[in-house]
Amino acid sequence: MSAVEDYLLAHIEEGIEDLKAFCRIPSVSTDPAFHGGIREAAAFLADRLRRAGFPTVEVLETAGHPAVFAELIRDPAAPTVLVYGHYDVQPPDPLDKWLTPAFEPTIRDDRIYGRGVSDDKGPLLIPVLVAEAYLKTEGRLPLNIKFLVEGEEESGSPNFEPLLATHRDRLACDLVLSADGAMWRPDLPSVTVASRGQVALEVTVTGPSKDLHSGRHGGSAQNPIRALVQMLGAMHDAEGRVIVAGFKDGAKPPDPRIIAAIEAAQFDAETYYRSIGSPKPDPITDGRELLTRQWLEPTLEFNGISGGYQGAGGKTVIPSTASAKISCRLVAGQTPAEVTAAIASHLEARLPKGFAVSVMQRGPGSQAFFIDPDLPALAQAEAVLGELLGQKPLRVAMGATIPIGAAFRKHLEVEAIFFSFSTADEDYHAPNEFFRLSSFRTGLVAWARLLDRLAKPAH
Amino acid sequence: MSAVEDYLLAHIEEGIEDLKAFCRIPSVSTDPAFHGGIREAAAFLADRLRRAGFPTVEVLETAGHPAVFAELIRDPAAPTVLVYGHYDVQPPDPLDKWLTPAFEPTIRDDRIYGRGVSDDKGPLLIPVLVAEAYLKTEGRLPLNIKFLVEGEEESGSPNFEPLLATHRDRLACDLVLSADGAMWRPDLPSVTVASRGQVALEVTVTGPSKDLHSGRHGGSAQNPIRALVQMLGAMHDAEGRVIVAGFKDGAKPPDPRIIAAIEAAQFDAETYYRSIGSPKPDPITDGRELLTRQWLEPTLEFNGISGGYQGAGGKTVIPSTASAKISCRLVAGQTPAEVTAAIASHLEARLPKGFAVSVMQRGPGSQAFFIDPDLPALAQAEAVLGELLGQKPLRVAMGATIPIGAAFRKHLEVEAIFFSFSTADEDYHAPNEFFRLSSFRTGLVAWARLLDRLAKPAH
Repeated sequence: MSAVEDYLLAHIEEGIEDLKAFCRIPSVSTDPAFHGGIREAAAFLADRLRRAGFPTVEVLETAGHPAVFAELIRDPAAPTVLVYGHYDVQPPDPLDKWLTPAFEPTIRDDRIYGRGVSDDKGPLLIPVLVAEAYLKTEGRLPLNIKFLVEGEEESGSPNFEPLLATHRDRLACDLVLSADGAMWRPDLPSVTVASRGQVALEVTVTGPSKDLHSGRHGGSAQNPIRALVQMLGAMHDAEGRVIVAGFKDGAKPPDPRIIAAIEAAQFDAETYYRSIGSPKPDPITDGRELLTRQWLEPTLEFNGISGGYQGAGGKTVIPSTASAKISCRLVAGQTPAEVTAAIASHLEARLPKGFAVSVMQRGPGSQAFFIDPDLPALAQAEAVLGELLGQKPLRVAMGATIPIGAAFRKHLEVEAIFFSFSTADEDYHAPNEFFRLSSFRTGLVAWARLLDRLAKPAH
Repeated sequence: MSAVEDYLLAHIEEGIEDLKAFCRIPSVSTDPAFHGGIREAAAFLADRLRRAGFPTVEVLETAGHPAVFAELIRDPAAPTVLVYGHYDVQPPDPLDKWLTPAFEPTIRDDRIYGRGVSDDKGPLLIPVLVAEAYLKTEGRLPLNIKFLVEGEEESGSPNFEPLLATHRDRLACDLVLSADGAMWRPDLPSVTVASRGQVALEVTVTGPSKDLHSGRHGGSAQNPIRALVQMLGAMHDAEGRVIVAGFKDGAKPPDPRIIAAIEAAQFDAETYYRSIGSPKPDPITDGRELLTRQWLEPTLEFNGISGGYQGAGGKTVIPSTASAKISCRLVAGQTPAEVTAAIASHLEARLPKGFAVSVMQRGPGSQAFFIDPDLPALAQAEAVLGELLGQKPLRVAMGATIPIGAAFRKHLEVEAIFFSFSTADEDYHAPNEFFRLSSFRTGLVAWARLLDRLAKPAH
């Protein structure tokens, strides 16, 4: 074990305290009520990078939330890695389902619980600590390192591409290492080489201009919840397949390499459904079918629905409006704009008379992505994971969306490798999000090794 | 004008202050968060009845919220009127749509705005002030008066029938006058002689045992919002007619007297739809069709729907549960239990595999009601209204539910006349509920006259 690795493990408690402090900041990017937390988290991260030894640290303003940039050039001739991550987090709702408060990080059973700890503050803090350890032990980094940490990943990164375009020269690098993403399963190391795209929509149906008494007006006034459920209820068939006309237009046949990975995964559907506490639906015959649906088919999910009275007890009201939040995952060939148009057409065609509907796309969305399979750095990342985790990692796709791969390729002309130590079962986006401290320890060693190897001429 | 009427109008400002004080108390019965307000409102009313001169005033406990009882027997041989009303109010949501706060009653343009001012605190305060005026001016009431004011009307009166059964002897009377109910239109005096029944349900669909990331799990995990909208979306046809099997079983043909009232009403559908800010749907051809739907047809309305993330921005979640609040208005022949069973069967038959559904009936519900058309007191009430409002009132039905008529008939064997000065356009159950001060003044005079006439042997 190298001096850097020794240093990292000897200082693990300090690293955990840093992570707790980072997670106490409620940096929810989607909700304006939390914008103080966004600023605070950006400042915290900038300060931590400075303390780690980065001579250049800047908060880069965007049209939305700021990004944090840091740079340490060891040698202009050495390779340059740009570390990507995000300091924003998902909303903590529903608050009453957290065993300990979302923004009071707590350790139980070698796990640390708190909003954002797995997605992405824990995985992001790892390369910061690794860089610091190199500077403390060897006095220098193995190669040139830049950081670019955004604050809008959970909001669909609306200003990320403009940020890359604006700062193209300063961000120049040979490779992006993403601290965001997720290991696929705790018992099986994996690297993510493909992800679905994404588009998010907000649908609002309006009926009467004000809330009405449902006894007095029931039978004559038009209830927007009724219109909404009728329109949304016609978007899937009885088995949950999307039946919106035009939704899959342009979708390409699946990549044979991902089909091969599905075959190799030997995924067990029954175990999966037990883990999410839900009976297995009939159409999902086995693990192969399950992964095909998660990786290779587009989705249309209702993330939220809202209308009328939702408090305890009842209220006899016909509300003025009802709304739903929809997000879709896209496969190769689908575009956010075309999917939004198909959904809007579906809704408008089914809108009963007497109602109005608005369909708003939230953020630019992103197309599906896959990485160059022959990238040498990918093989190096796989080798490090294989050494530390005892078996060669599987190349997997991801149902979730990491739009940054495509963005870095487009603006900086480099590939991005997802090298995150978050695991997909860590309830990110749900109550009781956690991060395994074992992953934290492994991640520190893995990043230390990978940076060292990427510095070698073989790369 | 009698001395009593003079007294009432001379003291109108004090009456308005009393009403404001009553309306400042947030006595929302459906939401446990407001239970302090319930107790406070019951105590306020009991105190006000004592100050009015009632020697016997008691807070009667029930299994839920208490009722307030008062009694003043002028002469055991004189007729006895029991005044009914309720001191509880609807929830104030959505709070942000109120021009002035829901529990800070405010006068604008000869109207007083506040939650509960029209339903039912204003109309209920009128007979209290009238009784006080008789005692202050004549030293006695024209007849025996009892009050029974409940605190659960907006919760479906779950403990009202047991209350009547328990206190049957103390509540004995010759006639009930209800201060609850509503005049039908501000420009046309009316008495309500029939109302639809009601039943309220809460439907919850459960999918996975916890919230899941919709990117990671989308395509494999079952989304309960999808199941809910599919099941609810199949409860009405495209024109809004209820198509739940068995829903209308047992419904009797409409009462010809109510059909005659609809013919007499000359109701204008276009004016109605302008007043609620909604275009007229095609199936509602005219005012006759509109009133037929409001008075003579059952409804199934979604009062609330809730699931997943509802805050600002988005959250890529597949929620664990989704739920809806449903209430139905029933016509003669339908029973709450049968309607609940029909809805539960509809939902269970359509529940996709992989989900669970629970259907909970909230409160006992009530059947439709109509009053004896030959009741002499009804003619006297109509005569008073005719004198004060300039034209003979129309006998109308009510889309909303007043279950107390049937309850008084069943337990006390008396009829109830709705003698309320609330008007149906006063946005009760909606933001910016108001009560016309002109109705307050007219109501005081009308109650003074009606009590006087009911004391006469002609009755």
